[in-house]
Amino acid sequence: MLGRGQPGSLDLSTPRFLMKRQSPSYSLTLRLRYPDQAGRLGTITSAIGQAEGMIGAVDIVDVRRGVITRDITVSARDVEHGHHIVEHLQTIPGVSVVRVSDRTYLYHLGGKIEVCAKSPIKTRDDLSMAYTPGVARVCRSIAADPDAAFTLTFRHNGVAVVTDGSAVLGLGNLGPRAALPVMEGKAMLFKEFGGVNAFPLCLDTQDTEKIIETCVFLAPAFGGINLEDISSPRCVEIEQRLAELLEIPVFHDDQHGTAIVVLAALQNALKIVQKELRTIRVTLCGSGAAGQAIAKLLKLMGVEQIVACDRQGAISRAHCDKENPVKRWIAENTNPEQLRGTLSDVIRGADVFIGVSGANVLGEDDVRRMAKDPILFALANPDPEIDPDVAAPHAAVLATGRSDYPNQINNVLCFPGFFRGLLDVRAPRVIDAMKIAAAQAIAGVIPEKDLLPDYIVPSVFDRRVATAVAKAVAKTALESGLARREHKPGFRISP
Amino acid sequence: MLGRGQPGSLDLSTPRFLMKRQSPSYSLTLRLRYPDQAGRLGTITSAIGQAEGMIGAVDIVDVRRGVITRDITVSARDVEHGHHIVEHLQTIPGVSVVRVSDRTYLYHLGGKIEVCAKSPIKTRDDLSMAYTPGVARVCRSIAADPDAAFTLTFRHNGVAVVTDGSAVLGLGNLGPRAALPVMEGKAMLFKEFGGVNAFPLCLDTQDTEKIIETCVFLAPAFGGINLEDISSPRCVEIEQRLAELLEIPVFHDDQHGTAIVVLAALQNALKIVQKELRTIRVTLCGSGAAGQAIAKLLKLMGVEQIVACDRQGAISRAHCDKENPVKRWIAENTNPEQLRGTLSDVIRGADVFIGVSGANVLGEDDVRRMAKDPILFALANPDPEIDPDVAAPHAAVLATGRSDYPNQINNVLCFPGFFRGLLDVRAPRVIDAMKIAAAQAIAGVIPEKDLLPDYIVPSVFDRRVATAVAKAVAKTALESGLARREHKPGFRISP
Repeated sequence: MLGRGQPGSLDLSTPRFLMKRQSPSYSLTLRLRYPDQAGRLGTITSAIGQAEGMIGAVDIVDVRRGVITRDITVSARDVEHGHHIVEHLQTIPGVSVVRVSDRTYLYHLGGKIEVCAKSPIKTRDDLSMAYTPGVARVCRSIAADPDAAFTLTFRHNGVAVVTDGSAVLGLGNLGPRAALPVMEGKAMLFKEFGGVNAFPLCLDTQDTEKIIETCVFLAPAFGGINLEDISSPRCVEIEQRLAELLEIPVFHDDQHGTAIVVLAALQNALKIVQKELRTIRVTLCGSGAAGQAIAKLLKLMGVEQIVACDRQGAISRAHCDKENPVKRWIAENTNPEQLRGTLSDVIRGADVFIGVSGANVLGEDDVRRMAKDPILFALANPDPEIDPDVAAPHAAVLATGRSDYPNQINNVLCFPGFFRGLLDVRAPRVIDAMKIAAAQAIAGVIPEKDLLPDYIVPSVFDRRVATAVAKAVAKTALESGLARREHKPGFRISP
Repeated sequence: MLGRGQPGSLDLSTPRFLMKRQSPSYSLTLRLRYPDQAGRLGTITSAIGQAEGMIGAVDIVDVRRGVITRDITVSARDVEHGHHIVEHLQTIPGVSVVRVSDRTYLYHLGGKIEVCAKSPIKTRDDLSMAYTPGVARVCRSIAADPDAAFTLTFRHNGVAVVTDGSAVLGLGNLGPRAALPVMEGKAMLFKEFGGVNAFPLCLDTQDTEKIIETCVFLAPAFGGINLEDISSPRCVEIEQRLAELLEIPVFHDDQHGTAIVVLAALQNALKIVQKELRTIRVTLCGSGAAGQAIAKLLKLMGVEQIVACDRQGAISRAHCDKENPVKRWIAENTNPEQLRGTLSDVIRGADVFIGVSGANVLGEDDVRRMAKDPILFALANPDPEIDPDVAAPHAAVLATGRSDYPNQINNVLCFPGFFRGLLDVRAPRVIDAMKIAAAQAIAGVIPEKDLLPDYIVPSVFDRRVATAVAKAVAKTALESGLARREHKPGFRISP
């Protein structure tokens, strides 16, 4: 049932059950030099093909004295495969491998974002408005009316992307320095899809109180804070405390972005199998902050039967790590029948499986035990809870976090538009109604008549998504009395 | 001797002795609607002239049914003068003032800087390199070798502009929100003149320990920290402590940027009057952090006779606020003859006056008491220590911080190139030799044969300055063994 998409989302740790594909994230630019003779390029490209490299662009760098230099872009499966392709080329007589560049590293050279002036400073007039002496008047206006900062400064459209590097992607506690490439990528996506100026701040502390305090100190220059890749359960406390302390919205994308996109996908998937939120049984695999956020949002939507599992099996009041506030919340608020047992035990009869855990925790037999027309969201990244090719024959709807299968459930569908909406009306905080509205907006981008088992969420490149989410969030803020945007006095003199 | 430059740098608080000029920082765009008849525009522009407004652009917005709408840009002297011009126009029969926009506020609407992606994310290939899954490999490289962050992230060319808003321009403690427009302006200048990505961080604390701690937490995402508009003496301690704690350079522009530009200007001024640094007598007015930094740098250059004054007169071991570490340093390190008395007393026989204090503290008689060919740097902003028109007849060389007189001593001459140089060689800290080299580079932009009493420093728009400063700083770092830049492994696979 599931067609293969284009290659694009494998990582080093891909387990054996998934045949690795060539990926642009492992693409190399090979600079080759060889005699400029007919047939030579054919030999080279055939050799790359024999080594299972996928050829992209083929460019001429230089031709002189009968010798040609070319750059050939080749996608490999992983680093070792790249080495193998290079070694294979080096065996061809007369072909010299001048240089091998890893395109992903080249892409990152010097960083991925920059800070730009909206207008250049070329004349004294520019300088006297942008800086001294003109700027003094603007400073005084803000000192007299701090809200004017939301009109006259970066704060208007600026979001801090804050991490402590304690849970970078699925890679663990790599620390703040190694987290920066992810945060820069996030900033790029904020701008590309939401028009939001997001700036990465990677904090060199993993102390909850220090993180909270630092965010409070940083808040005056920003219109919102997006928390990112902070480990559970600290991330939940940090977000809740900051939401109480600050006058700007705080959103932990790993929790709520995930929950919103899951709800969007689930609503569309249920239309396909003709089931209702109120009556489904959900097995939730993963008891971290994302799992809690999903359970909370589903409960708000009327889902009553949610059983969450961690590595020890079903979480119930009797079986729960009470030291961990996230797991305690799950124990107290899910599993109404107090089911016990392993994931394989409790998944029996479930309509929906939602995995935000790790690779390969769900077996084919487990899926067979589910109710008719099961919906599977195997979202662990880069390797899903079950091999999609194994699960597909048994699932009515299957979604993953991967770009090389249909139904990619990706937070990019949510956060750029979500913050766009918050900033547009200058909402001071995030409320649950905004999350529900955002999920419905994402789901609603696909008209019901166009829904298919492998088209339950729009593409991450569908430009309609961010606009729809922003509108939904802004509308909800307005209806809830949380919109603070108004025309500020001070920057216009009434005649 | 001093010619008038173009208008450009007055502020509300200009004292009476300075006749205010029309300034682009008080320019208005007036939208006027009136019958489209010959002679009407003449009446209007004449009326603006009568009201002493300076007309800039005159644009047509709309012509319909015999009625024309025009936008006329008018520079006023201050806000009240702008109101006066508008009121004067409203007395002309048939002319309707539709809207009055303050151009400086319009310039600030929505902020002055933005965060941009260096390349767009339009395809899955882009996404898989910029974000997941490709970014994971880059994160791991940095986790394995933290120095790789200086090559593969924003840190490579990123500077934090940090303030607590305790000393915003000359306006005092306006707090972090009101400081943001200045910091954004600074970020614009960093980019425009130094190609540096600078990002403003306005901290909501004025506690020295908290500011230090916050900067330490923020450091992993940046290649340098520029401290700005933090009040003395805290700024000195904050800078010194951070320099010890961090692996990246920390530079308080209000101290060292000022000192460097003063030294540059002084070196050129002394060439004109044919005096030597080692033998001059300097009266320094202002005993804050900038005064201390100037005294330190001049002492390093061999200046022995420096007497600093605060509001109580000459600072000596006997007359000094010993609670204030900056004043204590000045007392212990200047005034070798332990002179006492007022500014007017100790300026007798001085070769050089350097003012980094406040408006109108120096009298004409004081200048008369100075040695032959006195050099006056009256740098208080926006209003100098002495009216330049009063001082000019008595001074061999006169410089101010203002753009509407010759010899503008402005930190823009230093900080963009200074950080460009630091980042280019990844220097871990700032040393005094860099400051001296930067000053000599600024001074050296003007060939000795071209020096004139009203041309001792290059224009802030002279593009040669930042390049010269960057080269000088980088060279000094190399010579001092502080250059850490090297080609990092990891982003290129050797064949």
